[in-house]
Amino acid sequence: MFRSKIIVTLRKSILDPQGKAVEHGIHSLGYTAVKSVRIGKIVELSIDASNKEEAERVIREVSEKLLANPVMEDFTFTIEEL
Amino acid sequence: MFRSKIIVTLRKSILDPQGKAVEHGIHSLGYTAVKSVRIGKIVELSIDASNKEEAERVIREVSEKLLANPVMEDFTFTIEEL
Repeated sequence: MFRSKIIVTLRKSILDPQGKAVEHGIHSLGYTAVKSVRIGKIVELSIDASNKEEAERVIREVSEKLLANPVMEDFTFTIEEL
Repeated sequence: MFRSKIIVTLRKSILDPQGKAVEHGIHSLGYTAVKSVRIGKIVELSIDASNKEEAERVIREVSEKLLANPVMEDFTFTIEEL
């Protein structure tokens, strides 16, 4: 059994309105030193695979097909064996 | 200048309907080995602070006040100096 964390973020060139809104909120609280806020998703999941290579293949396919929008988003992931 | 990544996740005891929906989607694609999907947020931000302790204090306060809901969510963060 493997546990994976997949981080999906908007590409640098894509505007992030949610991040901008959060940045405004943070500034409203008085923390004006905070800048360049960007928001992404983190997906944690378990995989019942016989080896790490198979787990990695499944994560890559699931990320490309479902979790990330390949036009606008990038993803990175980590895998650990349980 | 510091760059921080803050990960906000639902507490283990809280049901995650978004994670359940994604898990269904993954199973529909044929990846039935994937289980226990949970979704969280990742917030990346820059802080103009004079030292790491000050940056850490700002991140902790912003996370507690704005980014995470203390009743339902936990947060962890990393800081690196740029």
